[in-house]
Amino acid sequence: MKALVYTGPGTVEVLDRPKPTIQAPTDAVVRVLHASICGTDLHILKGDVPKIQPGIILGHEGVGVIDAVGSAVDCFQIGDRVLISCMTSCGVCRLCQRGITSHCTTGGWTLGNWTNGTQAEFVRVPHAKLSLHPLPPSMNPRDAVTMSDAFPTGLECGVLSANVQPGGSVVIVGAGPVGMATLLTARLYSPALIVAVDLDEARLATAWKLGAHVTIRSSDPNALQQLLDQTQGEGYDSVIEAVGIPATFALSQKLVAVGGRIANVGVHGTKVDLHLETLWDRNISVHMSPVNATTTPRLLRLAESGLLDLSSLVTHRFHYTEGPRAYATFQKATQHQALKVAIDFDPA
Amino acid sequence: MKALVYTGPGTVEVLDRPKPTIQAPTDAVVRVLHASICGTDLHILKGDVPKIQPGIILGHEGVGVIDAVGSAVDCFQIGDRVLISCMTSCGVCRLCQRGITSHCTTGGWTLGNWTNGTQAEFVRVPHAKLSLHPLPPSMNPRDAVTMSDAFPTGLECGVLSANVQPGGSVVIVGAGPVGMATLLTARLYSPALIVAVDLDEARLATAWKLGAHVTIRSSDPNALQQLLDQTQGEGYDSVIEAVGIPATFALSQKLVAVGGRIANVGVHGTKVDLHLETLWDRNISVHMSPVNATTTPRLLRLAESGLLDLSSLVTHRFHYTEGPRAYATFQKATQHQALKVAIDFDPA
Amino acid sequence: MKALVYTGPGTVEVLDRPKPTIQAPTDAVVRVLHASICGTDLHILKGDVPKIQPGIILGHEGVGVIDAVGSAVDCFQIGDRVLISCMTSCGVCRLCQRGITSHCTTGGWTLGNWTNGTQAEFVRVPHAKLSLHPLPPSMNPRDAVTMSDAFPTGLECGVLSANVQPGGSVVIVGAGPVGMATLLTARLYSPALIVAVDLDEARLATAWKLGAHVTIRSSDPNALQQLLDQTQGEGYDSVIEAVGIPATFALSQKLVAVGGRIANVGVHGTKVDLHLETLWDRNISVHMSPVNATTTPRLLRLAESGLLDLSSLVTHRFHYTEGPRAYATFQKATQHQALKVAIDFDPA
Amino acid sequence: MKALVYTGPGTVEVLDRPKPTIQAPTDAVVRVLHASICGTDLHILKGDVPKIQPGIILGHEGVGVIDAVGSAVDCFQIGDRVLISCMTSCGVCRLCQRGITSHCTTGGWTLGNWTNGTQAEFVRVPHAKLSLHPLPPSMNPRDAVTMSDAFPTGLECGVLSANVQPGGSVVIVGAGPVGMATLLTARLYSPALIVAVDLDEARLATAWKLGAHVTIRSSDPNALQQLLDQTQGEGYDSVIEAVGIPATFALSQKLVAVGGRIANVGVHGTKVDLHLETLWDRNISVHMSPVNATTTPRLLRLAESGLLDLSSLVTHRFHYTEGPRAYATFQKATQHQALKVAIDFDPA
Repeated sequence: MKALVYTGPGTVEVLDRPKPTIQAPTDAVVRVLHASICGTDLHILKGDVPKIQPGIILGHEGVGVIDAVGSAVDCFQIGDRVLISCMTSCGVCRLCQRGITSHCTTGGWTLGNWTNGTQAEFVRVPHAKLSLHPLPPSMNPRDAVTMSDAFPTGLECGVLSANVQPGGSVVIVGAGPVGMATLLTARLYSPALIVAVDLDEARLATAWKLGAHVTIRSSDPNALQQLLDQTQGEGYDSVIEAVGIPATFALSQKLVAVGGRIANVGVHGTKVDLHLETLWDRNISVHMSPVNATTTPRLLRLAESGLLDLSSLVTHRFHYTEGPRAYATFQKATQHQALKVAIDFDPA
Repeated sequence: MKALVYTGPGTVEVLDRPKPTIQAPTDAVVRVLHASICGTDLHILKGDVPKIQPGIILGHEGVGVIDAVGSAVDCFQIGDRVLISCMTSCGVCRLCQRGITSHCTTGGWTLGNWTNGTQAEFVRVPHAKLSLHPLPPSMNPRDAVTMSDAFPTGLECGVLSANVQPGGSVVIVGAGPVGMATLLTARLYSPALIVAVDLDEARLATAWKLGAHVTIRSSDPNALQQLLDQTQGEGYDSVIEAVGIPATFALSQKLVAVGGRIANVGVHGTKVDLHLETLWDRNISVHMSPVNATTTPRLLRLAESGLLDLSSLVTHRFHYTEGPRAYATFQKATQHQALKVAIDFDPA
Repeated sequence: MKALVYTGPGTVEVLDRPKPTIQAPTDAVVRVLHASICGTDLHILKGDVPKIQPGIILGHEGVGVIDAVGSAVDCFQIGDRVLISCMTSCGVCRLCQRGITSHCTTGGWTLGNWTNGTQAEFVRVPHAKLSLHPLPPSMNPRDAVTMSDAFPTGLECGVLSANVQPGGSVVIVGAGPVGMATLLTARLYSPALIVAVDLDEARLATAWKLGAHVTIRSSDPNALQQLLDQTQGEGYDSVIEAVGIPATFALSQKLVAVGGRIANVGVHGTKVDLHLETLWDRNISVHMSPVNATTTPRLLRLAESGLLDLSSLVTHRFHYTEGPRAYATFQKATQHQALKVAIDFDPA
Repeated sequence: MKALVYTGPGTVEVLDRPKPTIQAPTDAVVRVLHASICGTDLHILKGDVPKIQPGIILGHEGVGVIDAVGSAVDCFQIGDRVLISCMTSCGVCRLCQRGITSHCTTGGWTLGNWTNGTQAEFVRVPHAKLSLHPLPPSMNPRDAVTMSDAFPTGLECGVLSANVQPGGSVVIVGAGPVGMATLLTARLYSPALIVAVDLDEARLATAWKLGAHVTIRSSDPNALQQLLDQTQGEGYDSVIEAVGIPATFALSQKLVAVGGRIANVGVHGTKVDLHLETLWDRNISVHMSPVNATTTPRLLRLAESGLLDLSSLVTHRFHYTEGPRAYATFQKATQHQALKVAIDFDPA
């Protein structure tokens, strides 16, 4: 089969690889229809994740059709359309039992990390029962790739961690694909004010189109004042950091209201300053969590019922034979006005 | 009347001051029986709190007898024994309505801060209805001074913020008076493991006597390893930082388990490092809150029923005429093996 | 001044009554612009509430303008437009401190119950600080009467008690004014399925217009089956009983899913059967609460931001001189296709 | 092997039965050391559970040693000492994922219900990974049988459902084995007042010994008044019904305070009256749940750390050859002053 393979820092290639087979009774093999690229894949490509060795097939996001199942997988049939979760979860270990699937003792982030990933014609999915979800018939599989990672990340790490509530105020720092998924899932809780902050005008325009009440360019010299003015100087109930650099975490601390929460969604590469000398008496909390994808069934119901529009996030599509170009586009996402970049394996 | 007055950096003096009177219908005047010194009082004395001007009567902890009440205070009678809360709370402002009394728009930390405090023969208490509590008849007023601040701080900022649970693991970093109050209130939730960490052997011995299962000296070269070994390397469900310096906050981050919480109780004077590059995917949260003293009625019931022993925290007592010596003792608390230092106004 | 007075079982009359005056420093007097009739007012009129004596001015819902304030009311100025809450709350008693304002030791349901009510040209409001809310300038005062009682009741007793969640399933048994307020506030949480049940076709049509995904007539011989079929036989996560008779509570018990909740919103006059013999092992809970109106500030923000449409509930309006006709209309609400019936005091 | 077999209404016999074998990769076979009798076993014996056919081996409580494991059971070795949970849980079905193991689509109450139970020399345990727990080395296996069902039931269905809190008030209606387990686990949360109610003096004496602050005989003509007097007429924050008949549920409704909770632990055979006409405005909730045994790991840690004393509940022991006498004793538990009755299979 064909696959997008990480062949060393800076290079991804379309190569022939053996088709995966069932290795454990709990495995499934999925024929991939559509995959997509996550920011983490870019980190791998840059060589920033030393434990990931060249030769791995990239990707942990995708939608496909069941091709084979292990003897213990009684809930899927060959031919079923499925969503592949970014988290592989056994369900029975101590951490899965607490809902922390990202630390599953035999799973977690598995695909495109320590087993071959979704950016291939076929992918083997361990712990298939909990790591795959039936795709509702009404759902467009091209759009559904955003359900593997982006939407559960936005909801869990952003909206739920920040305790977004009806009538509350929310600021989303960073309007990239995960920031946008955060915005769309925040709206499920009807906050009275959603403000999006970003450097890029085009992304802010998209945020506005997707429901942000106010957008503010972070490069604006008086951005902080404008942000605080939206809340009459009191700050935001829910601050969601969706970038992952010290500057945006610093801004987040200035924006949180007494009694509020900061949810960190960004993947940080360095330590940051925490201003306990001013925050210690503010009745706040800072939450940091990777996605556990335990909300995926709920998100699928929301999409099916029309309350969550999946079609806005995928801005670019490439046939898998153009995989390297897909990566190049996502690497310069702002320049290409790209949010999610999808890779099609389905000839249809 | 006599009062302990902050007369400038480094000096506290026993001076004559006019007896306070009712200024608003919601005020009460309390004849003080016993007061005590908080770490914050030491900060004031050092001149670290510039907004506090020389001339203020110190103290926000104390027990006394109602001497006079304003026309709107219908729940106390002259002669009633009362606990004075460290927080002054109107109950009706936006923040009091959310339980964040520390940010009450006309209250919060008031006594010994922007009105005269409790270390005097009499004190005027604004918003008396919520800022005073009837003292149960069975309760020794000498011990009850620990209920003004230390115990609600330990319970709210430590135990509740850190979500201490039956069967869980708790580490308390810092075994000073607030750390001890945290330890005693943590035990109300029956964690299976409580570990206390401190530099001082005597304090660790006290912590062990008060119920810590394990005590570890932080100066021990392999302290971190010993701490992690107590949890088979997994870290603690609840980490409570009760010191307030970068080193102890740094240690706290190394001790928190996946899915755990860090509760900051210490009052910090500088920013600290937050290691988001390692913590971002740990499913944890960091909580920072001053005491709101909303749990005081519950704590009084617990003390009354014998489930919370108040007698352990006050190690030293001085008559108010020896107030400066009381401060000198608390300033060198470790050397004097002091936890809480009380000041008696009652001749009895 | 003129007022609608309960003059004995079955009769309400427009009578001259003395204009109320400030009696306590915490009082305000409000010039009423608009009031509305609650189901409870009908109970009083029928003579069902024996403790309420003839002579009382009816009503606990309304909007008006501040006419006078007591000396302790520092947050309102004469001329301010205000919403009158159905609950009178001191904020400082033991129960108000827990958010249970309906049991405030000196308040709770006060207006039109044990003090004169809102259906008059002027009304005295005790505990004005928490019992009045500033009306946002953008809000139509005619619509805002639904914020006194109907919307907080729907949100608190219905939606929050039943734990409506994004992606969940909700059934609302009873599509009267409170059922409709429940429906509109349930939508703030984006459940994937909202089903409304009622005997009346017109009400079901309105429910559909206001956002119910499915409506089912309870008189339909296979109504129960149809209701269960909507959830593939599993029952509903959130069952909201908004009628108050044994038959609807019985239906509610048949509709609740394993792990779900029943929220009782209806005011019941008799005991009901609870089928513990089938429900004991279903992991469910039954919640019963009157409105505490603690969510009113949040609801006002939601209405101001356009996320909650207040204009749908008031179907009929009468000048106060036609007060008895207003009552007659609401008494035959279904026949008149009435939801909320408003009474105007404002000449404008 | 030998087993206690239900051979028809009223009869239990010691019979020879084939030793069970592994049937699925997720099975384990356990050599039973000790089992115990649950109230449910008595229901079966009476013929009250028609779906249970004569011929079944009784029992869902027990402790033993791993004899064989299926290929998918990687967490236990032959020879390991294990606790057998009363709930069989796959961990991956929709309901297990929500923690409702009692409704596991391929498990729930399995042993002694639709597969052979624990009262035998060997038992096959399906879904062994989550349905067995390693027994801490320090734990006496004779006492540990109470961890299969009684303690998790007391904690989950009683204490957690009733939201027992430090400083709160608790009344436990019914001081049988589950009521006692509720009492012991309630103490983990340090309520300020625990009252036990029962008909039987001896059971009340035991309740007092195990930590009830007050005990009241329900046959006392003024029992209700005495019960209310303990809370100055306000009622209890947490009411736990641990009998399962209409009279005790009726009493529970009279005892609940405004803002409190009723937790139903009893297994009811008939419907009960719910007095919505008086309770609708009390801000209360009624919780009904079977045990899910998700707290078992936490309870084992508590027992291991000495915070939960398991030794009090087992009052009678019989060798399995005297199984019918064990049942006869438990059938007349009050007369024999019996709480839990254990059955020993271990010769030691």
